[in-house]
Amino acid sequence: MWKFLRTREEFVKSLKDGRSVYFKGKMIDDVTSHEFFQPVIAHLGLEFEIPENIQYRDLVTFAINEKERYSRYFKVPQDSQDLLDRSRIIDLGTRLGGTVVLLIKEIGTDCLFALNIITKQMDRKLRTGYFKRLSDYHDYCMKNDLAMAVAQTDVKGDRSLSPSEQEHEDYYVRVVEERKDGIVVRGAKAHTSYGPCVNEIIVIPTRTFGPKDQQYAVAFAVPANAKGVKMIASPFGGTTRSDFHNPISSSHHMVESLTIFDDVFVPWNRVFMNGEVEFAGPLALTFVQYHRFTAISYKAPILDLLVGAAILMAQFNGIAEASHVKEKIARLIAYSETIKGLTRQAALNCRKVEGLAVPDPVYSNIAKWHFASNYHQHIAIVQDLTGGLTVTGPSEEDIRSPETKEYVLKYLGAKRGVPTEDRLKVINLVRDLTASDFGGYNEILQIHAEGSIEASKMTLLREYDAKPCTDLARHLAKIKEP
Amino acid sequence: MWKFLRTREEFVKSLKDGRSVYFKGKMIDDVTSHEFFQPVIAHLGLEFEIPENIQYRDLVTFAINEKERYSRYFKVPQDSQDLLDRSRIIDLGTRLGGTVVLLIKEIGTDCLFALNIITKQMDRKLRTGYFKRLSDYHDYCMKNDLAMAVAQTDVKGDRSLSPSEQEHEDYYVRVVEERKDGIVVRGAKAHTSYGPCVNEIIVIPTRTFGPKDQQYAVAFAVPANAKGVKMIASPFGGTTRSDFHNPISSSHHMVESLTIFDDVFVPWNRVFMNGEVEFAGPLALTFVQYHRFTAISYKAPILDLLVGAAILMAQFNGIAEASHVKEKIARLIAYSETIKGLTRQAALNCRKVEGLAVPDPVYSNIAKWHFASNYHQHIAIVQDLTGGLTVTGPSEEDIRSPETKEYVLKYLGAKRGVPTEDRLKVINLVRDLTASDFGGYNEILQIHAEGSIEASKMTLLREYDAKPCTDLARHLAKIKEP
Amino acid sequence: MWKFLRTREEFVKSLKDGRSVYFKGKMIDDVTSHEFFQPVIAHLGLEFEIPENIQYRDLVTFAINEKERYSRYFKVPQDSQDLLDRSRIIDLGTRLGGTVVLLIKEIGTDCLFALNIITKQMDRKLRTGYFKRLSDYHDYCMKNDLAMAVAQTDVKGDRSLSPSEQEHEDYYVRVVEERKDGIVVRGAKAHTSYGPCVNEIIVIPTRTFGPKDQQYAVAFAVPANAKGVKMIASPFGGTTRSDFHNPISSSHHMVESLTIFDDVFVPWNRVFMNGEVEFAGPLALTFVQYHRFTAISYKAPILDLLVGAAILMAQFNGIAEASHVKEKIARLIAYSETIKGLTRQAALNCRKVEGLAVPDPVYSNIAKWHFASNYHQHIAIVQDLTGGLTVTGPSEEDIRSPETKEYVLKYLGAKRGVPTEDRLKVINLVRDLTASDFGGYNEILQIHAEGSIEASKMTLLREYDAKPCTDLARHLAKIKEP
Amino acid sequence: MWKFLRTREEFVKSLKDGRSVYFKGKMIDDVTSHEFFQPVIAHLGLEFEIPENIQYRDLVTFAINEKERYSRYFKVPQDSQDLLDRSRIIDLGTRLGGTVVLLIKEIGTDCLFALNIITKQMDRKLRTGYFKRLSDYHDYCMKNDLAMAVAQTDVKGDRSLSPSEQEHEDYYVRVVEERKDGIVVRGAKAHTSYGPCVNEIIVIPTRTFGPKDQQYAVAFAVPANAKGVKMIASPFGGTTRSDFHNPISSSHHMVESLTIFDDVFVPWNRVFMNGEVEFAGPLALTFVQYHRFTAISYKAPILDLLVGAAILMAQFNGIAEASHVKEKIARLIAYSETIKGLTRQAALNCRKVEGLAVPDPVYSNIAKWHFASNYHQHIAIVQDLTGGLTVTGPSEEDIRSPETKEYVLKYLGAKRGVPTEDRLKVINLVRDLTASDFGGYNEILQIHAEGSIEASKMTLLREYDAKPCTDLARHLAKIKEP
Repeated sequence: MWKFLRTREEFVKSLKDGRSVYFKGKMIDDVTSHEFFQPVIAHLGLEFEIPENIQYRDLVTFAINEKERYSRYFKVPQDSQDLLDRSRIIDLGTRLGGTVVLLIKEIGTDCLFALNIITKQMDRKLRTGYFKRLSDYHDYCMKNDLAMAVAQTDVKGDRSLSPSEQEHEDYYVRVVEERKDGIVVRGAKAHTSYGPCVNEIIVIPTRTFGPKDQQYAVAFAVPANAKGVKMIASPFGGTTRSDFHNPISSSHHMVESLTIFDDVFVPWNRVFMNGEVEFAGPLALTFVQYHRFTAISYKAPILDLLVGAAILMAQFNGIAEASHVKEKIARLIAYSETIKGLTRQAALNCRKVEGLAVPDPVYSNIAKWHFASNYHQHIAIVQDLTGGLTVTGPSEEDIRSPETKEYVLKYLGAKRGVPTEDRLKVINLVRDLTASDFGGYNEILQIHAEGSIEASKMTLLREYDAKPCTDLARHLAKIKEP
Repeated sequence: MWKFLRTREEFVKSLKDGRSVYFKGKMIDDVTSHEFFQPVIAHLGLEFEIPENIQYRDLVTFAINEKERYSRYFKVPQDSQDLLDRSRIIDLGTRLGGTVVLLIKEIGTDCLFALNIITKQMDRKLRTGYFKRLSDYHDYCMKNDLAMAVAQTDVKGDRSLSPSEQEHEDYYVRVVEERKDGIVVRGAKAHTSYGPCVNEIIVIPTRTFGPKDQQYAVAFAVPANAKGVKMIASPFGGTTRSDFHNPISSSHHMVESLTIFDDVFVPWNRVFMNGEVEFAGPLALTFVQYHRFTAISYKAPILDLLVGAAILMAQFNGIAEASHVKEKIARLIAYSETIKGLTRQAALNCRKVEGLAVPDPVYSNIAKWHFASNYHQHIAIVQDLTGGLTVTGPSEEDIRSPETKEYVLKYLGAKRGVPTEDRLKVINLVRDLTASDFGGYNEILQIHAEGSIEASKMTLLREYDAKPCTDLARHLAKIKEP
Repeated sequence: MWKFLRTREEFVKSLKDGRSVYFKGKMIDDVTSHEFFQPVIAHLGLEFEIPENIQYRDLVTFAINEKERYSRYFKVPQDSQDLLDRSRIIDLGTRLGGTVVLLIKEIGTDCLFALNIITKQMDRKLRTGYFKRLSDYHDYCMKNDLAMAVAQTDVKGDRSLSPSEQEHEDYYVRVVEERKDGIVVRGAKAHTSYGPCVNEIIVIPTRTFGPKDQQYAVAFAVPANAKGVKMIASPFGGTTRSDFHNPISSSHHMVESLTIFDDVFVPWNRVFMNGEVEFAGPLALTFVQYHRFTAISYKAPILDLLVGAAILMAQFNGIAEASHVKEKIARLIAYSETIKGLTRQAALNCRKVEGLAVPDPVYSNIAKWHFASNYHQHIAIVQDLTGGLTVTGPSEEDIRSPETKEYVLKYLGAKRGVPTEDRLKVINLVRDLTASDFGGYNEILQIHAEGSIEASKMTLLREYDAKPCTDLARHLAKIKEP
Repeated sequence: MWKFLRTREEFVKSLKDGRSVYFKGKMIDDVTSHEFFQPVIAHLGLEFEIPENIQYRDLVTFAINEKERYSRYFKVPQDSQDLLDRSRIIDLGTRLGGTVVLLIKEIGTDCLFALNIITKQMDRKLRTGYFKRLSDYHDYCMKNDLAMAVAQTDVKGDRSLSPSEQEHEDYYVRVVEERKDGIVVRGAKAHTSYGPCVNEIIVIPTRTFGPKDQQYAVAFAVPANAKGVKMIASPFGGTTRSDFHNPISSSHHMVESLTIFDDVFVPWNRVFMNGEVEFAGPLALTFVQYHRFTAISYKAPILDLLVGAAILMAQFNGIAEASHVKEKIARLIAYSETIKGLTRQAALNCRKVEGLAVPDPVYSNIAKWHFASNYHQHIAIVQDLTGGLTVTGPSEEDIRSPETKEYVLKYLGAKRGVPTEDRLKVINLVRDLTASDFGGYNEILQIHAEGSIEASKMTLLREYDAKPCTDLARHLAKIKEP
């Protein structure tokens, strides 16, 4: 049964396919056995284990008929309930992943939904035939339970210039040749999440282009091992392996790649946009509308963790009843629940476009903006409640060694009844999450992933219907419609 | 038909009942014809006009059977939809009232719902018979379509002392005598909204009391003209009458009273708590849970107005495309929609208590806190976009007088095509709303009405279920349950 | 002795000079006896009384020789000490004026200093002869102890357009005719502080102009009663006359005018710029560098008052020891002292330009920005500590009338030992200062006077020497100079 | 000449003295040759190199007479200029140390100055003879140019309990025995900065104690190799050794220890307080007044670096002219200069106590509070301007290896003319400083070092003279003195 769902083992095995992945200047033979990638892949394997758990099965999969059952990620959302369900499975996966999003189904389907909408629109307006290709590709990924990455963000060069004004033409991925059987693309995409550890890479434009930039209006999908696809993996973000000092990042971690398209051939059935320049912007934005909803959905676990860690630290340190501590915990709760509440509003207020439910961009972007622009301040609160010991505390060996153990256990106790080691474990959790390579990675991620803070503001402004507001102002000011 | 709904005229007439209302040191014979109260009462009359509008009828009333139709405010909420409807009618009345809440049904029913819950609990635990009285009183108010005020906030004396520690015993309303037919109460309640302009005054405790403070645990209702009830109305908050300079406050305005109970007799059928000291706190808090939901529901119109006025001013001044202006308008929108979204969440996440739907206090209080603690900053944004002319602009006479008209119209124009007078009208709107006696009244209201900012925080902390958060932290820190 | 200092009476008398001042659409015969202007002029009279007080004499005046002693405002600053002294006398006058700046010497001399610098630069570069004229005019004002206003801010029309692109040419004051004996100017300046109550009006450009806008590059001075000068006074900002309800604004208040130049002739000896378009911007900015220092100097009294009122209210209400109250008062103190400390730094770090000490624009603008962008939040703190009674409290008549007095005094008491009336007086002070027409006026003033928040930021950026910072970054990043 | 100043080599050699330092559970034979401590000691060696530089000599040393020249740190401050000089040398050392404070002279002399004041006060009030001892000890340290650490913060146990209420008596360092020749102390101090790398450890109380806690009122100094002193060094805060990836922390880094006093004997001549319980609090606070001034002085380099790195990144990424970027850089500048300006004010407003100049605690604490409570937000700004590449960028090997070099250099370029490698170097600088183990260490340091944010607030409140403020409020409210 469930023949369309892969096991963890099948997933891992599928990554041994001759892909070109580089780490620290060297091509990696087999990512699944490489010291750096192995834990990332182990973390991603969760995505394939969760459906095996009877407790989660009905949530994370859906049935087409009695025989076929697929990952629910692939279900094209048709109403608020579909979006709420989607939000819940994103939350669940991330929570089981120690607050680190899995993303090998989330982002790919965000992109498939956006392509679904835009290919329909292109077909209708330009009499192209993209939707059929996209629909076949969607089925292909779904039925093979594939792991997908999305490469959207071009490396961009000088941010103040358009693609054709840059120092060289390749700062944005572009079509360099059109053949009978397909296209050849060149360029590079920055920070592709999990690129080296997926089966498929879907590529879409990163922004609106002008008429001169037609060659950049391209969307397509390639297998991760396609000829000419080269991924240079980033080494940052926390790679220590101590369960004690890095309780999260030792077993949960992302990887990003600089993904280079070194004249990669893409056959027509995998090309979803090729020069339809007026649809590049809409595609980028529609993807973002799904993807920011994914973003705010996967924040819930880290928000809960910040609240939980802060409360534990306050209790363990014996300061839980101090007025300023209560104020700070109330702030953390308000921060967390505001984002979670607005996420649900984004699902409940969804828009129907081309038959798909699109999360409300007003609430998605407010939630994203609120999260990103206030994250650091709330990290500061957690660090404040945890204490200086976060970075001046002992090592694991100090609490194991007979030479030092006695001193550490005696002197680093706090509230009566709380084992010193438990206190140190929560301190370690806070350091790992907020004051380490991994914590730094998190800070950058919160600001930059799924679009910058500025992008959220601008989307909000563009999508907001202010007419009821200006009407009310006009009415009360007793002035007429313009 | 609709015999149970009163007309505006019936409402106004009902206020001529010999009540003791003082204004500027003098007792007022008839509030309905008094210069200060007349516009307030005209504003409140809206509450009775709205149901006559076919467009709003089904929303603002509900039918018990084919003959009986009542104000929907009296409908005891049983699920999220009831609360969402309630939120909508509060928004509607306030919107039609120029952002000034009507409140003569809202707060009274908030209190009736809280009493509904607590009288059931008292009856069950203490074998009292309060619920029957309350239920009869509820029907009485509903069937007579009465206007109600709630007098909750005691004058309190020294805030750091409990009632019995104060300089005199009467800083909190208390029972001074128990008679065969009822009780006699003494004390004073501060800032009773619309007290002088309602039919009924419902009194409940303002806080939790200790066992020594039994005499203060009292809840009851009296007609506004009950013997010994004396209301000293406050003169503040904007009383100018220029449609031009004060487009809102010239026709929409609240009034508050210091409400004195000078040994007032209350018959038993109007007594809903009398010494059950352990229920004083729960009653105060349950009322607050309904009332903070009312509070955040009636903020929507002023939030929309701030957004609308800011956008109009930016357009009229020709600065709408400036980057900092867009950023500021985006902030206003995010502020507004965060509160509106969380309000809906409070209804959707409601709790069932004694058969009633109670708005989720977590979301209510986050919304209230967010609103109150950020209001002034957003006022600053609107003032920033409006310009210095807000307080240095001309008077109405300057734009009418032949001596000055020409100069004012010529020189105070801004964006081509926008009539100077329209620009000045929106400037006046902003001044009235934000930089005037009325604007000051609004600022104080936002901070203090329906409980202080500190109260919102503390309620949030108390009501929040943090266990999922601490469980996640324990799990990831690899420590056991305590 | 002191023949060069005028008395209050001489000042008042000097305003009866046939000037054209309009109020509510009507020309005013004599401002000194007009109900609206009289209290403003009484307030301004303080400027002439202060030097008569032996306690202040040496501070507020300076001697040229044994016979001649002038207002210190006219002393051209040559070092930090001169600027510190200037800051102190601005603070003193404002403090004695109940936190309302006097400004009839401050702003005029700010402008004279800027003209001093720029006329020297024009003379040197363009071989004009402006400095001599300016120097004579400076002496004239000083020796006659004149009250001056500065009209800088043009009405501007559409803010996104330059002067010559506007709907009509007169949105910025301009030269419409050049005669043998002088120039003729036309246009209007917005919100001229105290315009109707001074002797001299000094006019300078409000911004940088391009080469097409030569006619707008004009600086000059006219007597307030010059033919064609018409001032339309604004009626806003608090004009109640109750000592009890409005303890500050009943006796201290500003007035602004829309100042119209209806083809006003200016003789050459009063013209300080006429078409030198590349110096318009530098003049505007140099004035602003002095004037923002004036601005931050006159904020000290209102900052002290906010701190003082908050502390008194906390004490009177019995909440002074609550943790959140202490936090809030600490915030107020930090806000206040940050601005005061940075103000002194602006004097201590002054720059020498053309022999004059110019306050450091980095510190001035940081102080101004900090003040303006955080004012409303700190007002919210004071309102929070004061309580809802701020706008729901009784009138003066209520505490005098035998009908109500007893109730008010009994029930509105708070901390033992604090007279109820004292408590109400401080509440009134807070309402007057923060939640009234006058409070609204203050809010707008803080944002818009002496340049907007955006202007402060941009000046800061332009004036800041970031090279030591980028050098350090380059050094630590191990990259070379560009 | 300069016989009283040590060389780097003499300093390093002095640390080979048999001290008991533990790292990862093992005692270290020789810290100077240990992989972990060696770079820390190399960093600290700067303190001894700086005086050899002719450019800095006069600033960082002072002469007693023609022969004797000492480190200026030891100069007892007598006026504002001494404090300004002290601030400059702290800034200089930290700047040369790559923004990482050296602190082996700073904190020790902060403590010697505090002991100077308090021993005088104890001697006068209690007729003790501590000042002579302290004075001799000061000379000893100065003449031997010793490196000092201060161990103040007790491990504290349950923060809500006083020392004598704790689970065991040793949560605060205490006197366990008094002998003829001295005292024996027991307990542990947390996070002693540079403890394992100094010559002397000075110990003072961390807080005010009650009369029951007399045994905890103890101050003394011991050599770092005193018998029973055991230091467990913390391994956190960034220990990578790549110049490229960690341009700062690879060569500049602190170390902290848990410093255990395992029944350590202290001879009388090194005991500066022993049971004078009412002076424990004043000593703790006086130290803090000096030390917070040190704190805000050593922040200047990191503030400059944040500004500089942000500007370089904006330029290199081609976004320097975007409006939101300019706003963000202006915020960074204002943040930086506010703290630097207030630091100078703290020196200029110093108080004279017992002949010593004490930095003004109002300005010190405002500066400290402002710094600590806004640090994270400004880090977020720098991270925002730097981009996601901060944690998704390539490794050093990727830009060296022939397999990947070409792609990285081509695709990660940005603004024309800026070498890709330079851009990556600044990105690395930002990651090292803000988003790494070292960046996390910095975040914790900013919040917790030299006292918590709450401590700064409380000190500010206690030290602020609010009388002029309440006087002004009383005067304007027209109420009398209490």
